[in-house]
Amino acid sequence: MKALVIIRLKDGILDPQGEAVRQAVRALDKAKVSNVRIGKIIEIEFDGVDKGSAEASVKAMCDKLLANPVTEDYQIVDIS
Amino acid sequence: MKALVIIRLKDGILDPQGEAVRQAVRALDKAKVSNVRIGKIIEIEFDGVDKGSAEASVKAMCDKLLANPVTEDYQIVDIS
Repeated sequence: MKALVIIRLKDGILDPQGEAVRQAVRALDKAKVSNVRIGKIIEIEFDGVDKGSAEASVKAMCDKLLANPVTEDYQIVDIS
Repeated sequence: MKALVIIRLKDGILDPQGEAVRQAVRALDKAKVSNVRIGKIIEIEFDGVDKGSAEASVKAMCDKLLANPVTEDYQIVDIS
């Protein structure tokens, strides 16, 4: 069982890493890049766990450990 | 026009950040987590660019700037 979680900064939260990339990219090839946001994608593999308990487990991890609820949103995109 | 790029460590490349998360997660709720891999997800917004040139631009950025071709793979998941 494999779960895929995306963690993004909330809208309105400044993303200095994304801003640095935006500036580097503009210098690179003058592309009309207006905004860059960088998030994390986390792949979690489970051993011998059914889908329901994997999902519950992933939710608990995101709430308690992986995402900062003040600044970040998480999204469980796939469990299979 | 918005592009979504996922950058992951190649298989076989050690992921210390993922390993740290795996250990923390096991301590958290004794979930049977066998492996955790952490990658980046990058959202790039373009102003007034058509899909073709946005795609070429994103490819160039990934090759030259965003991904390290020795240790990382990138995947352009969506341009719309």
